[in-house]
Amino acid sequence: MALSSSFTMYEGMTVPKGVVVSARKCSQGIMCCLSSPISQKLGLSKSISACSGDLIRSSFFPNEELFSKNGLLRDGSCCRALETEKAFGLENAIAFSMGEKFQLDDILDAQQFDRDILTAIFKVARDMEGIEKGSSGSQILKGYLMATLFYEPSTRTRLSFESAMKRLGGEVLTTENAREFSSAAKGETLEDTIRTVEGYADIIVIRHFESGAARRAAFTAGIPVINAGDGPGQHPSQALLDVYTIEREIGKLDGIKVGLVGDLANGRTVRSLAYLLSKYQNVKIYFVAPDVVRMKDDIKDYLTSKGVEWEETADLMEVASECDVKHAVVMHPLPRLDEITVDVDSDPRAAYFRQAKNGLYIRMALLKLLLVGW
Amino acid sequence: MALSSSFTMYEGMTVPKGVVVSARKCSQGIMCCLSSPISQKLGLSKSISACSGDLIRSSFFPNEELFSKNGLLRDGSCCRALETEKAFGLENAIAFSMGEKFQLDDILDAQQFDRDILTAIFKVARDMEGIEKGSSGSQILKGYLMATLFYEPSTRTRLSFESAMKRLGGEVLTTENAREFSSAAKGETLEDTIRTVEGYADIIVIRHFESGAARRAAFTAGIPVINAGDGPGQHPSQALLDVYTIEREIGKLDGIKVGLVGDLANGRTVRSLAYLLSKYQNVKIYFVAPDVVRMKDDIKDYLTSKGVEWEETADLMEVASECDVKHAVVMHPLPRLDEITVDVDSDPRAAYFRQAKNGLYIRMALLKLLLVGW
Amino acid sequence: MALSSSFTMYEGMTVPKGVVVSARKCSQGIMCCLSSPISQKLGLSKSISACSGDLIRSSFFPNEELFSKNGLLRDGSCCRALETEKAFGLENAIAFSMGEKFQLDDILDAQQFDRDILTAIFKVARDMEGIEKGSSGSQILKGYLMATLFYEPSTRTRLSFESAMKRLGGEVLTTENAREFSSAAKGETLEDTIRTVEGYADIIVIRHFESGAARRAAFTAGIPVINAGDGPGQHPSQALLDVYTIEREIGKLDGIKVGLVGDLANGRTVRSLAYLLSKYQNVKIYFVAPDVVRMKDDIKDYLTSKGVEWEETADLMEVASECDVKHAVVMHPLPRLDEITVDVDSDPRAAYFRQAKNGLYIRMALLKLLLVGW
Repeated sequence: MALSSSFTMYEGMTVPKGVVVSARKCSQGIMCCLSSPISQKLGLSKSISACSGDLIRSSFFPNEELFSKNGLLRDGSCCRALETEKAFGLENAIAFSMGEKFQLDDILDAQQFDRDILTAIFKVARDMEGIEKGSSGSQILKGYLMATLFYEPSTRTRLSFESAMKRLGGEVLTTENAREFSSAAKGETLEDTIRTVEGYADIIVIRHFESGAARRAAFTAGIPVINAGDGPGQHPSQALLDVYTIEREIGKLDGIKVGLVGDLANGRTVRSLAYLLSKYQNVKIYFVAPDVVRMKDDIKDYLTSKGVEWEETADLMEVASECDVKHAVVMHPLPRLDEITVDVDSDPRAAYFRQAKNGLYIRMALLKLLLVGW
Repeated sequence: MALSSSFTMYEGMTVPKGVVVSARKCSQGIMCCLSSPISQKLGLSKSISACSGDLIRSSFFPNEELFSKNGLLRDGSCCRALETEKAFGLENAIAFSMGEKFQLDDILDAQQFDRDILTAIFKVARDMEGIEKGSSGSQILKGYLMATLFYEPSTRTRLSFESAMKRLGGEVLTTENAREFSSAAKGETLEDTIRTVEGYADIIVIRHFESGAARRAAFTAGIPVINAGDGPGQHPSQALLDVYTIEREIGKLDGIKVGLVGDLANGRTVRSLAYLLSKYQNVKIYFVAPDVVRMKDDIKDYLTSKGVEWEETADLMEVASECDVKHAVVMHPLPRLDEITVDVDSDPRAAYFRQAKNGLYIRMALLKLLLVGW
Repeated sequence: MALSSSFTMYEGMTVPKGVVVSARKCSQGIMCCLSSPISQKLGLSKSISACSGDLIRSSFFPNEELFSKNGLLRDGSCCRALETEKAFGLENAIAFSMGEKFQLDDILDAQQFDRDILTAIFKVARDMEGIEKGSSGSQILKGYLMATLFYEPSTRTRLSFESAMKRLGGEVLTTENAREFSSAAKGETLEDTIRTVEGYADIIVIRHFESGAARRAAFTAGIPVINAGDGPGQHPSQALLDVYTIEREIGKLDGIKVGLVGDLANGRTVRSLAYLLSKYQNVKIYFVAPDVVRMKDDIKDYLTSKGVEWEETADLMEVASECDVKHAVVMHPLPRLDEITVDVDSDPRAAYFRQAKNGLYIRMALLKLLLVGW
């Protein structure tokens, strides 16, 4: 990736003037909850349900009440903050020249991002928090038109992107029924649809039921394409907002311990997240899942190849017992079922609604970067 | 309710300088038509249909043609203007200081409104008629974002709110399929959905199939919530526009006689309307309905406790025969079926399309008041 | 039609100063492809399918590969560019005074347009290409609100109109489920719906499943109505964009030969197009279709009465063999099935995606003309 000439970063090395650097040492952890609907869609609901009823609630998490009352969690489809040990690190600071073209043409998967660009994107997302409402900056996408092409409904993700576009003064063409494009034709290709829609809009946000669909769309389109979830493939803006939330909540990304708990076999979010976490130093990942839905080998091999430490267990208690939850963060992509009781919502460590809001800022940042650059 | 210090009202007492007061004495009446789909949804379609076929057309309204030709109406699911006797009254005039915060955080039910605030809201609605199109005033909600969260489809109500928002320069996030939020989760709570959506928008307009849902949403949300109909509960903006229409058509609200005709047992609009009418002086209400769908006791008890005179009958002719329809107004919430023939549409007393348009002004007023105050 | 006083045209006669006139002589042809879903909707899928499988591929078009490789086409549901002979003509130039009211109140069918107004509309469409994005001209519809009232889904047409409106700074009220208006009422008339919606918007774009519905809507509405397809009736904006595309691709409209190939019995587009082509001089039309779906007599009689030469055949090869495809243009309303292979897409003569984009410009022009005039 060709970075702009003004690109500078410092990670314990050079610190440009005027940049505030904070070194933090503390025990902190992040909990990432995984929702189960994806596994249900893929036909695993029966086994998951069995897990929930017997394995997870009884043996997997023998004391299901422990976390709902004392420790934030309730059952096995949820997740657990795991404490950071030997935590240290400097905040990364990266400057990309304002007004320059964004390095990416499309947002398709988590592998596109390296640490530097993540840091820079998160900085833009922080700026977005300030211009969310009413300020003069909120017209930077005025005159731009985003088409949301959703081949499967996802009101939550669609509204998040549409809110992001409108908060920046842009406009939206909505279709929740993108399949109708093809049903009318009983067989119009995705490529033909894209070539029509790119004539109507400046950017396409696509949600599709097939893995790889977003990449095909991007290959065809002359305008930017954002993958808003393609079947069992990826959902990169979700992964970005997860990492952004960790940074916002914890204050750093190096030296963290992250527990990923739930159905790890079928969650596209957790796969994207694992890719992103591998960009940071001294990250340790705990995969906590019953055997039937454990993390697949490709991700574990990838992490090993990147030198990321990981552990795998079916017993959350075993992992949790080592942990101090004092600085923990509980995350969840939402929607939740009964993984986390509402009692937890008022706990300051419950970050899932802030996490949802962060999705807005990340999407504002991505739309801004793809349409008008840095 | 704490009114602002600059609040002034006069009702036969003190009249501030610069306020035009008009005393009117005339015989006037209002007809309020009720549509039947609500009762059909509630499983009463069979009995209603039986009424329509036999009871209503034959005995309830023996001469179904009388009103379609001579008196504006055609069958029993419609309503009747009833003349005002001893009509008198002063127009209320209320001044709330411009720029001050609106007294209500949410619009949930008709009981929230007293006479003073109704008068003030109607004044804002009148202003909205002037700024409906193209004027400089139409950008007062620029930068604001409304989410329409419809758990059951209601294209008419949704478009009315969305037009109101856009006429004031605001933007809209639409979801006609709000159930999909929860279907994806097979059980996400309304509260969780609200906490997510409040991160994307500045105000929520909710339509729900359960009574009380809007109140639960408002309790959760940190942003204003408008109830656009919650099952058999209330539909306050509809009741407000009904009363506003009466005032616009008749010129006053004290001393009127109102006939509410049709399915009175299941119509949420008529319930909300009865609450609002009780705020005015010397109002007389005629409930005209077949026995199976007569007005429930709670409303009748409420009116009695407020000193509102009401009568109940199953025979529209009996009531109508006492009336002079010269100043009558025929209203209907729409959509209509065969309650009113199209012959009536060109009669100046047919107010139902003006009533629909008034819905726009009322909703513009409510959005303006909740988002930027007086 | 009363044209404005400043209206001037020249067709080999008077040429106003400052207008560039180009005389062109060349052999050119236009191919117009017809999609088959319309016939499928009308219950003809079986016979069409039979044609596709046996008649069209075997006898109707014995060498189905001929055109996909060498001549642009592949099978019988597609169409064919036919060369112009003795082509000549001057470009028409028409000036309508800027700021004057548009001559039409509504866009309902192709018969509304004469040659002069077509020329003038196409000139506005050309201007729209320049102001599509970001320029100051793109706010000319600011403050205007368009309601898309779609009684049958057509995402493609809807997005095209909505993009056109938003590209000009206007706003949109969307309903893909306009039937719900009436389903709620189980029988609300179109007229009642229109009288409600006209209170919310400044212009209505209607798609309906019944022929004549748009005309009924226009008769009722006090605001402009655009017919976006009414059952087997017309789809005038599609016909306009077809003719506009021919002019943009070929540079003229007089003296062209046009092959219309496919299901000619049920395609509303081809009927509207035949009406429009009759406005030009020395046009020759070839109707190429199997007997079961040949062009109906009313159009053929109309063309004869207007002096337009036409021929009818079931054998595309017979017609095509006379032709030189050097200047041909392949058009298709999209979506396509297997009428044209993707190999053709990269051929510069393949105009169908440019044609779709032209639909945007034509719709921008129509919206501008109906709402703010010339």
